[in-house]
Amino acid sequence: MGYRTLAATLSGVAVFTLSVSAAYVIWSKGGNGSGLYSRHWSPDSVQGYWDPDNFYQPSKSVEGVFEATLCIQCHEGITPGIVNDWRASRHARIDEPVYCNDCHGSNHQQLHLPTPVVCGNCHEKQHGEFRDEARYGFPSHVLAMERAVDAPHFADKPKAEVQSCVQCHSVATKCDSCHTRHRFSAAEARHPEACITCHSGPPHPDDESYFASAHGKIYRAEGKDWDWSKKLVKGNYKAPTCAYCHMDEGRHQVAHKSLWKFGLREVNPHTSKNQLLREQWIELCSDCHEAKKAAQWLSELDRERKSAWAKLYRAEDVLKNLRSNDLLRPAADERPDYPMGSFWRMERIGFFEGQASAFYNVSALERDYFEMWYFDNLGAYKSAAHGNPQGVDEGHRRMAATLERIETKAQILRHRSETEQSVIANPAVTDLWMKGKYTDFNRTHN
Amino acid sequence: MGYRTLAATLSGVAVFTLSVSAAYVIWSKGGNGSGLYSRHWSPDSVQGYWDPDNFYQPSKSVEGVFEATLCIQCHEGITPGIVNDWRASRHARIDEPVYCNDCHGSNHQQLHLPTPVVCGNCHEKQHGEFRDEARYGFPSHVLAMERAVDAPHFADKPKAEVQSCVQCHSVATKCDSCHTRHRFSAAEARHPEACITCHSGPPHPDDESYFASAHGKIYRAEGKDWDWSKKLVKGNYKAPTCAYCHMDEGRHQVAHKSLWKFGLREVNPHTSKNQLLREQWIELCSDCHEAKKAAQWLSELDRERKSAWAKLYRAEDVLKNLRSNDLLRPAADERPDYPMGSFWRMERIGFFEGQASAFYNVSALERDYFEMWYFDNLGAYKSAAHGNPQGVDEGHRRMAATLERIETKAQILRHRSETEQSVIANPAVTDLWMKGKYTDFNRTHN
Amino acid sequence: MGYRTLAATLSGVAVFTLSVSAAYVIWSKGGNGSGLYSRHWSPDSVQGYWDPDNFYQPSKSVEGVFEATLCIQCHEGITPGIVNDWRASRHARIDEPVYCNDCHGSNHQQLHLPTPVVCGNCHEKQHGEFRDEARYGFPSHVLAMERAVDAPHFADKPKAEVQSCVQCHSVATKCDSCHTRHRFSAAEARHPEACITCHSGPPHPDDESYFASAHGKIYRAEGKDWDWSKKLVKGNYKAPTCAYCHMDEGRHQVAHKSLWKFGLREVNPHTSKNQLLREQWIELCSDCHEAKKAAQWLSELDRERKSAWAKLYRAEDVLKNLRSNDLLRPAADERPDYPMGSFWRMERIGFFEGQASAFYNVSALERDYFEMWYFDNLGAYKSAAHGNPQGVDEGHRRMAATLERIETKAQILRHRSETEQSVIANPAVTDLWMKGKYTDFNRTHN
Repeated sequence: MGYRTLAATLSGVAVFTLSVSAAYVIWSKGGNGSGLYSRHWSPDSVQGYWDPDNFYQPSKSVEGVFEATLCIQCHEGITPGIVNDWRASRHARIDEPVYCNDCHGSNHQQLHLPTPVVCGNCHEKQHGEFRDEARYGFPSHVLAMERAVDAPHFADKPKAEVQSCVQCHSVATKCDSCHTRHRFSAAEARHPEACITCHSGPPHPDDESYFASAHGKIYRAEGKDWDWSKKLVKGNYKAPTCAYCHMDEGRHQVAHKSLWKFGLREVNPHTSKNQLLREQWIELCSDCHEAKKAAQWLSELDRERKSAWAKLYRAEDVLKNLRSNDLLRPAADERPDYPMGSFWRMERIGFFEGQASAFYNVSALERDYFEMWYFDNLGAYKSAAHGNPQGVDEGHRRMAATLERIETKAQILRHRSETEQSVIANPAVTDLWMKGKYTDFNRTHN
Repeated sequence: MGYRTLAATLSGVAVFTLSVSAAYVIWSKGGNGSGLYSRHWSPDSVQGYWDPDNFYQPSKSVEGVFEATLCIQCHEGITPGIVNDWRASRHARIDEPVYCNDCHGSNHQQLHLPTPVVCGNCHEKQHGEFRDEARYGFPSHVLAMERAVDAPHFADKPKAEVQSCVQCHSVATKCDSCHTRHRFSAAEARHPEACITCHSGPPHPDDESYFASAHGKIYRAEGKDWDWSKKLVKGNYKAPTCAYCHMDEGRHQVAHKSLWKFGLREVNPHTSKNQLLREQWIELCSDCHEAKKAAQWLSELDRERKSAWAKLYRAEDVLKNLRSNDLLRPAADERPDYPMGSFWRMERIGFFEGQASAFYNVSALERDYFEMWYFDNLGAYKSAAHGNPQGVDEGHRRMAATLERIETKAQILRHRSETEQSVIANPAVTDLWMKGKYTDFNRTHN
Repeated sequence: MGYRTLAATLSGVAVFTLSVSAAYVIWSKGGNGSGLYSRHWSPDSVQGYWDPDNFYQPSKSVEGVFEATLCIQCHEGITPGIVNDWRASRHARIDEPVYCNDCHGSNHQQLHLPTPVVCGNCHEKQHGEFRDEARYGFPSHVLAMERAVDAPHFADKPKAEVQSCVQCHSVATKCDSCHTRHRFSAAEARHPEACITCHSGPPHPDDESYFASAHGKIYRAEGKDWDWSKKLVKGNYKAPTCAYCHMDEGRHQVAHKSLWKFGLREVNPHTSKNQLLREQWIELCSDCHEAKKAAQWLSELDRERKSAWAKLYRAEDVLKNLRSNDLLRPAADERPDYPMGSFWRMERIGFFEGQASAFYNVSALERDYFEMWYFDNLGAYKSAAHGNPQGVDEGHRRMAATLERIETKAQILRHRSETEQSVIANPAVTDLWMKGKYTDFNRTHN
């Protein structure tokens, strides 16, 4: 068991190191996929729209090289909506309009979908800020795609579900996740809806927690009458939206003010760096609130986090203790040989062992902990951060319930005979992943 | 057990046959209720508003035969809101207005609530399209009410819950489910909210999945400024709403484009009929998107469905295997004699055995499967179909968790002694439905 | 066990008596907190904003006594948003404007946050109505704060979660929960969003159930075009909002029309008082609907409640039976000595034993029942009351599932040997609350 613990720790360190460096390596375009694990997956065709630079294949149905006026003339009949959008956009109304072919090219059989680099040709400041997020590691928008394809579960999860992840992670590869085509409006992107296209649902209920907060509900009731052409500076909006706080003054860089790292791992609130960030937040909140209140609110968040980590660490201890006594079954080396299985055969208990990849092919107890950590904990955090009190209660209530379930199961495991343990532990998982239609299907389709 | 399996299969076939033919039989208005099982239930009084043709009883408090101007004169004081709505409606503003008594009658003690037939007197095209849905079987709007009262669980479920079902299923019997009274506005019905009055929550989170999709969130942010008087044709709306895709060009027929049958049973995507439907969808999506993308998206949906059915079939196999070994307890013949019990005493495992009626009075394992199939599976499907990636993940994660739970329980059942099995299997259900306040209350109140 | 049952009953009576009288006693401001249990908790600093009369401490950073024009002059630069809001408010636009210092005072080091009493100086009628709610006991707005701090779980729950409760319960101590500062608009408070800042999520999904109802969805689709300056009387709104029904004609008193007491305990619908209330509702519904329909709808609610209580009582019986046989473990006297532990050491089964405080430090089975009663039951009730059929189904389905779980666990407990019982019962709870980081943390931080 000592070996396993050591291996886990080492692998944990390895993951951490790899993932830090991965941001700066050029992806190997080996096999069909891209990224570190490119040999282990192949892209679905629709991936071309989510990662156009790597995978988009233009239609070959129309031949010819077209001038902008011809693009518009033809598409006015075929897809009038996008032409309307363009006409209503600033692109069409400036002195030297930005036409279709400026972004897509002119040869209809070689059309491309504009990446942030293309947009950055004109919008240099915004693109620079966007790229600058990489300095802060992950989570960040600019690394969202490569970190998705570089996570072991990208190859291990059933592809239908992976595709769901990638759909949002494509925010790294195209600007119209927030400024929808073909109006590309700044006013639109200032609306909270621009963000929550992706930031909703577990594990990141920013949607749910903002809209259920006092801020969000003022927006819901009155936002329809606000002047969204105004800049995101104090005095312009009665209540803040996502962008007001996270992209203050329109800065396209969301990562630099991150205080608690998404709730994914514990953060020491007393480091000098954290204190500096905290002052930035307090200044921002002071656009409307007493500074003292902002500081107190941040302390409440520290308290909430402390309470959450008390529960999470306790669950982690229980699991690690079971592992030391060889009671966590199926153990990593008893699990099916998944795409990434041989490379990554270890338990994943806690952030530093790659817990974020524990979606599948783990013991039931690891999975319980995964859900407690990734869904309930993050839900509580987001709710606390956005001022949605019910979400805090809900998250903590669920965490407490899961912790109790984990402790009960662990206690039963310790009291049972060996024969019984092998049955009760979680035989279903072994069976589920070892054989049968489901596993076979996944194995051949990732 | 052979008998039971055979019986289940036969009954499955019977259900299927009955439900296909039921659309065309005239309901026996025997007993107090209507429909095939009319002897087994009696309508609540409020049912008169949900199925007015069969059950509405006008108030007797006001006597007299009134002309339209008198209706309005009096109701302007009593219920000014509905008079305001009518005045704002097209009914009031056309050359020959449609007055109260045109739809409700003039004799105040014999007033009726207008059914689709009444509306169809003028709106012939829409009514014809609406009725045409019957050709496509169920799910469909036009059959929603009769299929509800013709499902065995209509008599078996606690009435308080059945009433909840019927409230939405009344879409079959009155047009103001979508065009609310008394404005009956087409513009209103083009809003997604017109549909999601019913299409929300499990098992059909169309609301949740649409509003969390890119389409829905563009609507949320900008829909307030759209011109809703415009027809549902390309170029008129920046993002599609429910009606834009499902009732394209205003056609009051939603069923004909159904590709995956609501996710209720597996569909072969490669039949020529399915390919034809697929082309219709691709053409529709091409109003805004590249046709290739639409086709690829549909393939992603095929993949999602394949992955879901892999899990569902596996769970079904486990349950059927337990049944063959007489381990599914309480077995159908040990269950309480519910209203429909003697007629319908069988397990309900999977679509063809009438799984949709497995809300109550089943073993805990059948119920686990029911929730996996009816809630988690349909949630995943709707999310995939509407482009809400988080919902896909959530649905599949829940399905996997339930599948594991089912497998674990099954494995435990197989390893236990007989005495223990009878306890652990699911004693609570037997007890819950066999005796006690709850069952007694239901038995006498359905 | 007889002792324990008796004690529970007596304590139940005691709670009831205490909570009735507590509304009228003056809080002892002993220790750091306030309320009956003030010795057992100390306020977080942010509490000053939620209970300003007791705890607000003004900032000392700015010295001086300022006239109104100076307040505005300075804050126009520092916090322009709140000055904009004030300018747009009626306070600024009346002949004798209400200035900053009228509500906050002039001495910057002794500023206060206005309580309802301050607002009541001018808005006497509204304040009187608001205070009048106290006559109807709890739940009510005016008692929301004192009942929170006077509930045993205020001292027993982890503080991070208690703070979440208090955030909404502060509706008792400040008017800007509904009329957000500094516009304090009546039109805003007529929007449903004004209410659902607090009334959302379990255990009071008023938000979810209203917005998913026919009423709520008409508001969602069309409310943006309504004239919100209009009074809440019939004819002015196409669909009702929270305030239209619960604060009809603008009356600031929500408690007097309560028919089912929030679903917290069973109510006899046939008392003469209930019949009188019912007539008030029917009259209100008759603003738009046939009176008969309103009456029938209320009967449906009676049926729904009856069905819910049938399930709840049955669960309660199971738990009480286990307690009689000493099978509910850990029993109250085996639980950790929590802040309120010694005073309040008893099981809490059902409303009259203080079930509402059973968030933590209870056996797993008590907790199951708590969730069934407080979340699923209240969800079903709110959904039925607001006309959200899916929520009714969801609540009842969950209640049935929990009831089955409770019965199964109880049956297993009764069949096991004593050794096994001590393990299976729910060892985790004992362990969870007896020792370890989590408990220690709570014990020293409440």
